[in-house]
Amino acid sequence: MLKVPNHQVAGHQAGDGKLGPLVDDSGHFCKPLQSDDRGSKEVFFYTSFSSNTNIPNHIRRFFPTFHGTQLIEASNGSGKQPHLVLQDIFFGRLNPSIMDIKIGSRTWDPEASEDYIQKCFMKDTKRSSLALGFRIDGLQIYESEGSGFWKPDRQLIHEFTAEDVRLVLRKFVSSNSSAGVDPDCTFASTVYGGSGGILAQLLELKEWFEHQTIFHFYSCSVLMVCEKESVVKEMSSGAEVKLVDFAHVVEGKGIIDHNFLGGLCSLIKFISEILTCSDVHTAKASLQDPRKNYIYTNCDTDN
Amino acid sequence: MLKVPNHQVAGHQAGDGKLGPLVDDSGHFCKPLQSDDRGSKEVFFYTSFSSNTNIPNHIRRFFPTFHGTQLIEASNGSGKQPHLVLQDIFFGRLNPSIMDIKIGSRTWDPEASEDYIQKCFMKDTKRSSLALGFRIDGLQIYESEGSGFWKPDRQLIHEFTAEDVRLVLRKFVSSNSSAGVDPDCTFASTVYGGSGGILAQLLELKEWFEHQTIFHFYSCSVLMVCEKESVVKEMSSGAEVKLVDFAHVVEGKGIIDHNFLGGLCSLIKFISEILTCSDVHTAKASLQDPRKNYIYTNCDTDN
Repeated sequence: MLKVPNHQVAGHQAGDGKLGPLVDDSGHFCKPLQSDDRGSKEVFFYTSFSSNTNIPNHIRRFFPTFHGTQLIEASNGSGKQPHLVLQDIFFGRLNPSIMDIKIGSRTWDPEASEDYIQKCFMKDTKRSSLALGFRIDGLQIYESEGSGFWKPDRQLIHEFTAEDVRLVLRKFVSSNSSAGVDPDCTFASTVYGGSGGILAQLLELKEWFEHQTIFHFYSCSVLMVCEKESVVKEMSSGAEVKLVDFAHVVEGKGIIDHNFLGGLCSLIKFISEILTCSDVHTAKASLQDPRKNYIYTNCDTDN
Repeated sequence: MLKVPNHQVAGHQAGDGKLGPLVDDSGHFCKPLQSDDRGSKEVFFYTSFSSNTNIPNHIRRFFPTFHGTQLIEASNGSGKQPHLVLQDIFFGRLNPSIMDIKIGSRTWDPEASEDYIQKCFMKDTKRSSLALGFRIDGLQIYESEGSGFWKPDRQLIHEFTAEDVRLVLRKFVSSNSSAGVDPDCTFASTVYGGSGGILAQLLELKEWFEHQTIFHFYSCSVLMVCEKESVVKEMSSGAEVKLVDFAHVVEGKGIIDHNFLGGLCSLIKFISEILTCSDVHTAKASLQDPRKNYIYTNCDTDN
């Protein structure tokens, strides 16, 4: 009944005798507890978050539902091992496009060991975290029935510059996401925009992060999900934001999570710019040629 | 005509043959150019900021007016040296209370040398920058005609914990700021609150930082100023916010300054809590005893 997930874009992956998460056919995502203190830290977070009555419901929906821990036959054949049983975010999704974005210019908490800080610091500097306040950690973008998904390998993702990140965020909402083509941002207004879109969800999260002093979320990811086919069929875009990976969450001790908030605001700015840009061009295109619904040209924004 | 400023709380200070800023009697603050590239960087910032037409006027007022550079007799007797000629922020102020708050959990820019990064990193960790996203770098709080100012020495300020910062931010708006007394936050609603208060000004800055991608302000300070005596005489509180120290400003390259923004939001949260707390107690006190205008008790806030 348990199998390797179809839509995992980052983190340890099961298969080939390796330990990784498994999903069942009723919407559960079983994540093996990491053997060092990261496993216990993540259990502690989910337990404490679930029982904390100060988390508003409109914020709770951004977190996977927690169903406790369970001994489950591990994917690497090592027998029954403790797993977190969580909501499978992609359950029932048709060809979801997914981005895993690790938030924060720094991915280590101040209580971490010197060695660990040094390791993370090097990674944050080398990748885009330090510069952008976030980095893309994994992605798959649905292209078409024929070509399936664009899922660049880890090495390529690790080398993303600020401009690559900008491009990939545009590809995520484009009907022409193949290499070498200017992304058309066709789906920007439905996936990123609108009252239920990704930008609105990120802004809701931002508002909470401006006030909450309960947790600091180091090395935690924002998952952005959408289904382009649904947009084409004029159904909902399935645009959804979820927070995942809580092995480095620490207590906030009365201080806001300025590291997460800063990075989140930076991501929001990138997405707002894509929306502004695609709005401008949609409007322009409609004026010039009412048969065209969108057009892409370079969009320079001033500040 | 040039003299050592009366109200300097941080940075290099003139006097005793040392090089430091001087003020004249017509509202100018002359800051010697630092001899390494920090001097030229600060001149570059002021020049570029002054001529940039994308800076809105309501934001420009948060920066000291720039009157160019000039050769001026240096305070250390080394003859004529180049100085930045800036607006003297404290000109005409009567016993101003001042806080110099260095914003950002990190005070070094990504292009700095490894040695410099290491030096700043140690300092940011040891002091409150890493934890709070900002640190108090200097302060003077006016107490009374008899006792003058409370101006703790640098060593004490360098040892401020999160709780000390919270306390000092309350002392800043209290009529009883002496040691060992619970600050009464008498002036919180006039200095921090209100449409012209410090919180409103910080929120205006925050809004700009959510969008501006022109500059990244590393190691830059927010100065908060007020005049308690003016409040007592029922005049304006003179509450003012200014940004100073731009020797480590770098180009934003299309990315928001998430390091500054995160720290600014953290400071905003500290100040909002003081306001909420003092509001609650003012209301409580007025209900219980109409002769009392305020009262202080511990204020625990939930999230």
